[in-house]
Amino acid sequence: MRPVDLIRTKRDGGALSREEIEYFVAGVTSGAWPDYQISALLMAVVLRDMSAEETSWLTDAMVRSGVRIDLTDFAGAKVDKHSTGGVGDKTSIVLAPLVAACGVLVPMMSGRALGHTGGTLDKLEAIPGFRTDLTLDEMRRALREVGCGLMGQTEEIAPADKRLYAMRDVTATVESIPLITASIMSKKIAEGIEGLVLDVKTGTGAFMKSEADARRLAESLVATGRRAGVRTEALITAMDAPLGRAVGNALEIVECIETLKGRGPADLEELSVLLAARMLMIAGAEASQHFAIERVRETLDSGAGLEKLREIIAHQGGDPRVVDDDARLPTAPGRHLVRAPRAGCIARLEAELVGRAAIALGAGRNRVDDAIDPAVGALLLKKPGEMVGAGEPVVELHYRRAADVAAAEALVLRAFDIADASPPARPLVVDTVP
Amino acid sequence: MRPVDLIRTKRDGGALSREEIEYFVAGVTSGAWPDYQISALLMAVVLRDMSAEETSWLTDAMVRSGVRIDLTDFAGAKVDKHSTGGVGDKTSIVLAPLVAACGVLVPMMSGRALGHTGGTLDKLEAIPGFRTDLTLDEMRRALREVGCGLMGQTEEIAPADKRLYAMRDVTATVESIPLITASIMSKKIAEGIEGLVLDVKTGTGAFMKSEADARRLAESLVATGRRAGVRTEALITAMDAPLGRAVGNALEIVECIETLKGRGPADLEELSVLLAARMLMIAGAEASQHFAIERVRETLDSGAGLEKLREIIAHQGGDPRVVDDDARLPTAPGRHLVRAPRAGCIARLEAELVGRAAIALGAGRNRVDDAIDPAVGALLLKKPGEMVGAGEPVVELHYRRAADVAAAEALVLRAFDIADASPPARPLVVDTVP
Repeated sequence: MRPVDLIRTKRDGGALSREEIEYFVAGVTSGAWPDYQISALLMAVVLRDMSAEETSWLTDAMVRSGVRIDLTDFAGAKVDKHSTGGVGDKTSIVLAPLVAACGVLVPMMSGRALGHTGGTLDKLEAIPGFRTDLTLDEMRRALREVGCGLMGQTEEIAPADKRLYAMRDVTATVESIPLITASIMSKKIAEGIEGLVLDVKTGTGAFMKSEADARRLAESLVATGRRAGVRTEALITAMDAPLGRAVGNALEIVECIETLKGRGPADLEELSVLLAARMLMIAGAEASQHFAIERVRETLDSGAGLEKLREIIAHQGGDPRVVDDDARLPTAPGRHLVRAPRAGCIARLEAELVGRAAIALGAGRNRVDDAIDPAVGALLLKKPGEMVGAGEPVVELHYRRAADVAAAEALVLRAFDIADASPPARPLVVDTVP
Repeated sequence: MRPVDLIRTKRDGGALSREEIEYFVAGVTSGAWPDYQISALLMAVVLRDMSAEETSWLTDAMVRSGVRIDLTDFAGAKVDKHSTGGVGDKTSIVLAPLVAACGVLVPMMSGRALGHTGGTLDKLEAIPGFRTDLTLDEMRRALREVGCGLMGQTEEIAPADKRLYAMRDVTATVESIPLITASIMSKKIAEGIEGLVLDVKTGTGAFMKSEADARRLAESLVATGRRAGVRTEALITAMDAPLGRAVGNALEIVECIETLKGRGPADLEELSVLLAARMLMIAGAEASQHFAIERVRETLDSGAGLEKLREIIAHQGGDPRVVDDDARLPTAPGRHLVRAPRAGCIARLEAELVGRAAIALGAGRNRVDDAIDPAVGALLLKKPGEMVGAGEPVVELHYRRAADVAAAEALVLRAFDIADASPPARPLVVDTVP
């Protein structure tokens, strides 16, 4: 077997065998395949696609490039949630404590901000002292003592994905359903979970702009999870406008805490509760969505979710007093109000542009090694469907360097359409892939 | 401009601008583009193609990655011929002396054997002492003193092609009409020629198996040459069976000499004379094909072509006595006759398998750095359309290591079909792309 033969097969639209895919992933992991052959094969995959079978073999080989965590000594199903990424998407930090407070174990491995989308790890690290670099042993201890651990990908988990991901980013080979599937699912399967709920975003602020693409991705993810023996389902949800009103790491932590106090934005609460309910169902803790939602709502209303968040923060080295006192989170020295250029109804608020405005302020990353400022970001005072007067504030920018404000403001103004009438809103949950 | 943006544009089927293509070629030449981005773009080009305009810009940028030889101080048109490669294709060594003997200058830059096809440089180097590593100054002196120089690609000529070619070979990105076009034409345009005759091979022994592909390649080559101001035309010729009867470097030199003595195989003589005639026409030395062929034939019949070959050999350091004495060429110690398994008519003799048999004996290369044995090869005693008795010899193998014979014989036997009746032969010259 030679790399060039596999590349030629895929280039000509053929299918790779299980052995060939294992040879590829082994070569990626060991370094035996040079970069230029990896990227040539990746581009051929982008343009020629892979079957469900090939995708499943690729995922499996990537799982086995590292360790698969064994959590079988923990009683009951371990479940996780994964989002394909959006702007203001902070549901993990709301739902993980809710699900754990319902007695279902949540070993959650999250990612960092990249491009216009945020990352759960960066948000959590806005909490003073919070450690996301748990070892696998520390994760086990967190599950045992708190019922939930929130951590980043370690070196032991799917190392092949690490090399492939870095390569894809610079060779325009990110946008491929089999490659996205294998990257996401290899890490999730390696967590040792029995159940996974996927939140596949669609819309202008998502990687998958069209519903058709989002559905194809959701189906690929679900099929691959099930072939690996993980109970998997996907919700397809709207990511046209940002979720909630806060974009920026510390600002989003405040919003998560408010939501767990029952005072959060409706869309964030609705989606967090629904995803948490689906996690209970997939864990076998509730048999119907109706009862599952009821149980999550009770956990939210009773404050048990908030208490669980406090426990998680304390257990991972963070300052749990942030739950009662926002001022203990980093705050930006400057505030700037962006004002509506005309009166009317907010017809559109484009998530990607808001995300880029947040990056302009320092809240996100253009490159993997960019540093992040946890304090800066944007509060959306107006969202689609709401009325605004001419000159009324629509966004509050939280900035550190005054020089960043002009660029961020210009992006925010481009993000808004103000019209005479409100267009019909599409539902938050577009579809379910069972 | 960033490499990833160009890769994305081509991946999505878009056209690259002239500036983008220049940025790419500059990055290939300087090393600023890493290998993995080069190969990703190459694969996107293979699968998404390039327009005639993009191909022309790519070629032009590759020419300008090195020097374009200035031969304007030589009076009259300088012309060259290029073949896309075949088995037993030795026309260059017959026609270059013929054209030079007619008074038209031939600065010819040739390649080496790779895969199942032979290379003119390797054939010439079978002549004891013959140097193909002429400098550009030595080429000028050869043109001035002999009217013809036969050399390999130097470091100064199209260095971008060198890096791209090495990369394409190991990433399954060879088979692309724009990439093949730019690779061939950049080197030819850099020679400083005014006219170029292309011999585009089609058939089982050619890179372009189908006539349709060969025609597309011929049209791309001709269009690109003309955009660069070089008078260019292409013949599409059959490469199903090997050309002539000799396959192997020294054996082919003997056949070239025999052909210049008027005793060569009919197909080799016919194609060499026709290509030489087209070169005279494109140089403006003859106005019609009829008169051009007549003049080449006279040059052949008078022995003036043979004398010119003797001069060329002497000028480039070779032993000119090989022209009169085959025994001064390397000869292999062993001979083995492959015999017909049945009686009948030769219906097929597959060039690629004969080429691979020659490689098995050591006459060619599987890898760029393989060494070549100039003495070994195969003489085809029977060719398509000829009758053979059961057990009669069809091929004489010239070998050095007895251990190589079995593999070569097996390949030769697979190359032959012997049938009851002869199938209709397709003409040697399939078409012309003017």
